[in-house]
Amino acid sequence: MASLYDIGVSAVINCTIMSLLFIFFLVFNIQPLNDRVYHPKLYMKDAQRKGSPSSRSSHPKMDQYFETKCLPYLQSFAWIVEAFRMSEHQIIDHAGLDAAIFLRNIQVGLKIFIPLMTVGLSTIVTINVGGGYLKSLDHGKVANINNTLNSSPTNSLLFTDIDKLSIANVPSGSSRLWTHLVMAYVFTAWTCVVLYNEYKTISLMRLEFLRSARRQANQFTVLVHQVPKSTVESINIQVQKYFRANHPDFYLSHQLVYNANRLANIVKRRKNKENWLSYWHLRFKASNERPMTRRYGCGMCGTMVDAINLYTTKIEKLNKKAELERVAVLQDASSTMPSAFVSFKTRWGAAVCAQTQQSFDPTKWITAWAPEPRDIYWPNLAIPYIKLACRRVCVGICLFVLVFCFMIPITIVQSFASIQGLRTQFPQLEKVLKITYFASFVQGYLPGVILKFFMKLVPYMVRGLTIFEGHSSFSRLDQQGAMKYYYFMVVNVFFGSMLTGSALEQLQSFLNSSSVVQFLKTLAYTIPMKATFFITFIMVDGWAGAASEILRPWGLLSYHIQNAFFVHTEMDKVRAMDPGPIIYYVNLAQLQLYFLMGLVYSVITPIILPFVVVTFAINYVVYRHQVIHVYEAAYESAGSFWPFVHGRIIVALYIEQLMLIGLFLVQGPITFKTIHVSDDDSLKEKALKFCQQAMSSTPFVVALPIFTYIFHRYCKTRFEPCFLKFPLEHASKKDMDDRTRDPNFNMSEFIQNSYKHPDFLDERVLQEIRKETQLPTKIQTKPQKHKNEMLDNTVDIPNMVEGTFVCNNKFIS
Amino acid sequence: MASLYDIGVSAVINCTIMSLLFIFFLVFNIQPLNDRVYHPKLYMKDAQRKGSPSSRSSHPKMDQYFETKCLPYLQSFAWIVEAFRMSEHQIIDHAGLDAAIFLRNIQVGLKIFIPLMTVGLSTIVTINVGGGYLKSLDHGKVANINNTLNSSPTNSLLFTDIDKLSIANVPSGSSRLWTHLVMAYVFTAWTCVVLYNEYKTISLMRLEFLRSARRQANQFTVLVHQVPKSTVESINIQVQKYFRANHPDFYLSHQLVYNANRLANIVKRRKNKENWLSYWHLRFKASNERPMTRRYGCGMCGTMVDAINLYTTKIEKLNKKAELERVAVLQDASSTMPSAFVSFKTRWGAAVCAQTQQSFDPTKWITAWAPEPRDIYWPNLAIPYIKLACRRVCVGICLFVLVFCFMIPITIVQSFASIQGLRTQFPQLEKVLKITYFASFVQGYLPGVILKFFMKLVPYMVRGLTIFEGHSSFSRLDQQGAMKYYYFMVVNVFFGSMLTGSALEQLQSFLNSSSVVQFLKTLAYTIPMKATFFITFIMVDGWAGAASEILRPWGLLSYHIQNAFFVHTEMDKVRAMDPGPIIYYVNLAQLQLYFLMGLVYSVITPIILPFVVVTFAINYVVYRHQVIHVYEAAYESAGSFWPFVHGRIIVALYIEQLMLIGLFLVQGPITFKTIHVSDDDSLKEKALKFCQQAMSSTPFVVALPIFTYIFHRYCKTRFEPCFLKFPLEHASKKDMDDRTRDPNFNMSEFIQNSYKHPDFLDERVLQEIRKETQLPTKIQTKPQKHKNEMLDNTVDIPNMVEGTFVCNNKFIS
Repeated sequence: MASLYDIGVSAVINCTIMSLLFIFFLVFNIQPLNDRVYHPKLYMKDAQRKGSPSSRSSHPKMDQYFETKCLPYLQSFAWIVEAFRMSEHQIIDHAGLDAAIFLRNIQVGLKIFIPLMTVGLSTIVTINVGGGYLKSLDHGKVANINNTLNSSPTNSLLFTDIDKLSIANVPSGSSRLWTHLVMAYVFTAWTCVVLYNEYKTISLMRLEFLRSARRQANQFTVLVHQVPKSTVESINIQVQKYFRANHPDFYLSHQLVYNANRLANIVKRRKNKENWLSYWHLRFKASNERPMTRRYGCGMCGTMVDAINLYTTKIEKLNKKAELERVAVLQDASSTMPSAFVSFKTRWGAAVCAQTQQSFDPTKWITAWAPEPRDIYWPNLAIPYIKLACRRVCVGICLFVLVFCFMIPITIVQSFASIQGLRTQFPQLEKVLKITYFASFVQGYLPGVILKFFMKLVPYMVRGLTIFEGHSSFSRLDQQGAMKYYYFMVVNVFFGSMLTGSALEQLQSFLNSSSVVQFLKTLAYTIPMKATFFITFIMVDGWAGAASEILRPWGLLSYHIQNAFFVHTEMDKVRAMDPGPIIYYVNLAQLQLYFLMGLVYSVITPIILPFVVVTFAINYVVYRHQVIHVYEAAYESAGSFWPFVHGRIIVALYIEQLMLIGLFLVQGPITFKTIHVSDDDSLKEKALKFCQQAMSSTPFVVALPIFTYIFHRYCKTRFEPCFLKFPLEHASKKDMDDRTRDPNFNMSEFIQNSYKHPDFLDERVLQEIRKETQLPTKIQTKPQKHKNEMLDNTVDIPNMVEGTFVCNNKFIS
Repeated sequence: MASLYDIGVSAVINCTIMSLLFIFFLVFNIQPLNDRVYHPKLYMKDAQRKGSPSSRSSHPKMDQYFETKCLPYLQSFAWIVEAFRMSEHQIIDHAGLDAAIFLRNIQVGLKIFIPLMTVGLSTIVTINVGGGYLKSLDHGKVANINNTLNSSPTNSLLFTDIDKLSIANVPSGSSRLWTHLVMAYVFTAWTCVVLYNEYKTISLMRLEFLRSARRQANQFTVLVHQVPKSTVESINIQVQKYFRANHPDFYLSHQLVYNANRLANIVKRRKNKENWLSYWHLRFKASNERPMTRRYGCGMCGTMVDAINLYTTKIEKLNKKAELERVAVLQDASSTMPSAFVSFKTRWGAAVCAQTQQSFDPTKWITAWAPEPRDIYWPNLAIPYIKLACRRVCVGICLFVLVFCFMIPITIVQSFASIQGLRTQFPQLEKVLKITYFASFVQGYLPGVILKFFMKLVPYMVRGLTIFEGHSSFSRLDQQGAMKYYYFMVVNVFFGSMLTGSALEQLQSFLNSSSVVQFLKTLAYTIPMKATFFITFIMVDGWAGAASEILRPWGLLSYHIQNAFFVHTEMDKVRAMDPGPIIYYVNLAQLQLYFLMGLVYSVITPIILPFVVVTFAINYVVYRHQVIHVYEAAYESAGSFWPFVHGRIIVALYIEQLMLIGLFLVQGPITFKTIHVSDDDSLKEKALKFCQQAMSSTPFVVALPIFTYIFHRYCKTRFEPCFLKFPLEHASKKDMDDRTRDPNFNMSEFIQNSYKHPDFLDERVLQEIRKETQLPTKIQTKPQKHKNEMLDNTVDIPNMVEGTFVCNNKFIS
């Protein structure tokens, strides 16, 4: 149990760590050497756009390694100001709607918790301090504890300063508790107001985004699953006939789905060889001498041969193989999946087909909006639809095991890794274990390291599970992964910190010995006591985490190591600096955990709120920078993950309210006035008791989750369809616009290759499609020093050049 | 606790009552006097079809009152044979698909429970009897009881013969329990197989029915709710513009929805007056003397005037008033609801509109299939959509109170109505209470009567709640009502019989003192003991209930009383004999209760199964007769209630499996082999314990509801859409058929008046529409004695005339 002083010390330590990380970032960020680590987005887009611009311009080696001038160091904070300069519209244009809504998610945290913090600190903390219950206990009345908190699971309670600020300081049945009840209502109401407004804004943003989107293949295309098996006709003809018959005025064309996973493998190998070839070509250019290499094992064994010749023949062989495989896939009926991308002449036709039931058998001819071509996760399209159900069941069971049995193997490994365990398992280590340093390492650090190691594995396990589940788009994978990871963290991090033992044991004890109410009571006891733990958690995980997010130490290290040893060609360079997209499923789930902690403690120990607010604020700044400079969106789902975010905040509200119910059960219901019951009339007595209960806090506490549920339902019916369906109204309007603007547009040609498996297309078509589906990158910021090199293809945007410091004022149009 | 002998006595008594009721029916059924009570369907259809045929033909008074010949008495069982003669297709033609599927529901009971009974009686009962646990207890080892059943709620356990046939006779941990586990799997699997086949058949029947249906207005019409408010345009113009823009190729016309409840009231009053007028006309005809009546209060007060003149002027006045109201409704913007029936040129267009989201705001322009014109519950169409949400919340709360607090007022009233209560409340009754008979009546009967009275009120309360909830069609009202009534009965009848105290107290005790598992254990203890109670319940409620359903004592009484005193005109006569439609919401819920009892006891006390089977068999025969001869469908929803039936049987399976889990917890898990755990290694111990648990019955019992859930989900996705949506495939096929068959069909004219408020149409149009929307009544059975009278408009159907007895072989084509 930490005192206020301990928290202060912890805060100072964490602030120092965070500050150090930030200072490192500020210094590193300025060095031209690290430019590709901290601003990879520009280089990536550049590389995609113009083939190989970096050979011409901005490799830091050509310029200088370290910044030696003074000015940039003085301006090292400029990135913050710059990050805030971009309006939301510019961010949408620059990084996509998903990124903008991800930022909004963090903003929602600020919107919810800043007022909560203000009110909480000013009222609840005052009320709690005035409660003086713990002080009275301190004055030698410890005997009372065991009396009052009879069923308390911990018999030795120690109270600290933090607890004096929490609800634990208010004596049972005190009328001060009414304040907490009222505040719970106020906080819930405020959270709901913010959530409602946000859902409304975001659904409008989404619709506006979809409305104003250029003509894109996915607007006209529907993914059809479960084409029924036929012995007479091929799937190709079946699809054509079916949609000609049922959507005669709208059906345009279709694209079959093939199981081309083997082909994809060959193409991948070929790309690797091509990369090697270009490396050898570079070597040849540099030394003007035919490079030699060994024949096998990446040049490790075999006879020496001419490297360029070797790789040319290798590539040719793979090309032939790929061609053969391509033909085989097209001809082999078993490679054709019973699915198809069906395109329509109008958006209206596609919207209709996506939203309606086609066949009388609802498990046949299932239609759904086709994801963006970039968004498709091709390997999963090759899973037969029938297997998906089985996989879903398996994943459900695995997830249950992962969530509830996660601590079991860890405890076992930890017990093996303890001194005792090592001694019994490996008697030969006896001598080593006698070394004091080693022993203390084993005792003090090893369990933590093991836990950390397993925790780091979880996102990968979650990702693996989600992919195995068979979702056919990256956006779905992210959403489903976030859901799983969130519940894992709620059980293992949030509740796991409160209760001891593995989650499965808790579940067992919940089912076995204690009742629902008893379980709530146990939680309610531990909650206020665990506040200090969560404050520390927030500081370590939220503050230092955000700082290391912007510093990207692993990215930095890996880039420089790769750059020093493994980068041979352009492709290697791009690969080395590529930070990938934001890992939504991890980040979203982590953010939701802060929401949960903030909301649960908002009424109980509001002293936690400033820490939460600071976390959100730091994360907001950091991710604004990252979204603008680092991460490149892999797909655009127009914010389809928002219902997840909204739903999880509602879940946090539910948990908060359940905890409150538990607390009020522990404290005993508070009544407006006590009604004395006479013993003579049992009926009257019953009625009086009923009145007393009705006048107490109980119905008010119980009503809270009911209100939240109603709000939840309302939001679900009001806004969620916007994220699942596309209204016909918009579709017909956009169709009309298109018709008037461009009456002779050739839709067939436009749609032709959009949904072909990428490995079926040659590289040129693929480039074009990528360009088509990518967002228009209007604004890209670029550190000043490359100004001269970039000038040829940049334009000034006047309103962005203002400001006293000279930085990042050039934008590629 | 009843013994086998007691059950036998009870069965004999109930069989006697049932037989008596049936004999009464057989005798009454033959009497021409009761013809309109037991075969009203024919008369009703006749009356609707040809104006007033009964004046010409079949009033029993014109023929004879009582059957005096012998032959009919000998053939009194013919109705059973006759009921089974009709094939399912004929029943669908005659009574509609809803009725046929209702019968199928009872049939499902037979299909499930006959094999369960056979297997259960042959295996489980043998195993139970061989268990011999209770016998061993009888032999003086009573001390063991308190040892073994330590936490048993009842300390004094008495075992009877019935219990020796139940699972209670198997000692804890006996390997005999594996049989029960295996049987639970077998029974669940069989139930699922039956349910799956039935769902499949019924969804095919529904689709076939819809496919083969004649051209009907509801196939082309969509009900649009929430037309947004506009200050510029009227709703009429808005609707037109909107659908012209968004469904340009398919929109045909629309019909606004008016709040015409006041008009409906006036029309109702006018109809009443018209009935009186025709009565006076009849009087005039009979006596040839102008009848006189008093001016006010239905002829009770005021001056004497000429009745015919009086009512003619009254009707004229009301006609004028109705006309004015009609104009007012049409002109007053506030009477126009923001809803409309929008009709489309093709079924495809309507199917598309009903299934898609129209506006970007999902709470505006909400579309759904329009119910059949007959099915519409007009008063609820006048409820603003926004109010519906509030009403739904209110109804939710009311339902909770009704279900869980139902016993509270009853207990209070019962305590008032007890001798003690009466004495304290009404001291003046002291003398009366001293009369032995009265006292014993108060003590013995009054509580039962009060309970029965309140229970009889429940369906009306449920109906009221459902109507208040604002569903706009009778079919929805029936489904939602059935859902509510079912849950009421599950809590108050099923669980209420097992546990003492009101349901709210149980809920409280469940939340407070006992854990989930403890609650299950308590239930598991009481379940086997309550088997005898439920057997009696099934006999009283199911057997005698079915017999009184076919006897219709209230209908009989009311018809004869009305006929004797109040029937003046044709309309009165029709009204007196009208049995109304089947009250689905009560009947469906009651049937589901038998499913619940049968399934829950199928493994525990299979001796209950024969009683369940007999109940279903009797009900099947009775309702076949009723459907053919008595009840006339008020609407045709094409079996849309089947998902409810299916879902409730699944719920019954869940409850059964939970009870089994409880029982196996009580009995302790049975293991394949006991693994002895040594104390030296805690880790190994844990692993062994885990293995032991994994090898025991626990995972098998727990897996059962999971399998059921998977089956449930599968059926939901596989079949439920058939009951909610109309596939485009069928729509376009039917459209095509129509186009080829009747290319010049005037759809506008056809659709024109279908969805006008009935009180807006004159009587002639209404008659036509009624005829249009009604099912083709191909087959109508008619008792023999009216053969001559009906011959002019009947035809023989040869395959129905076979058979040795001469009855009901004439059918109206």
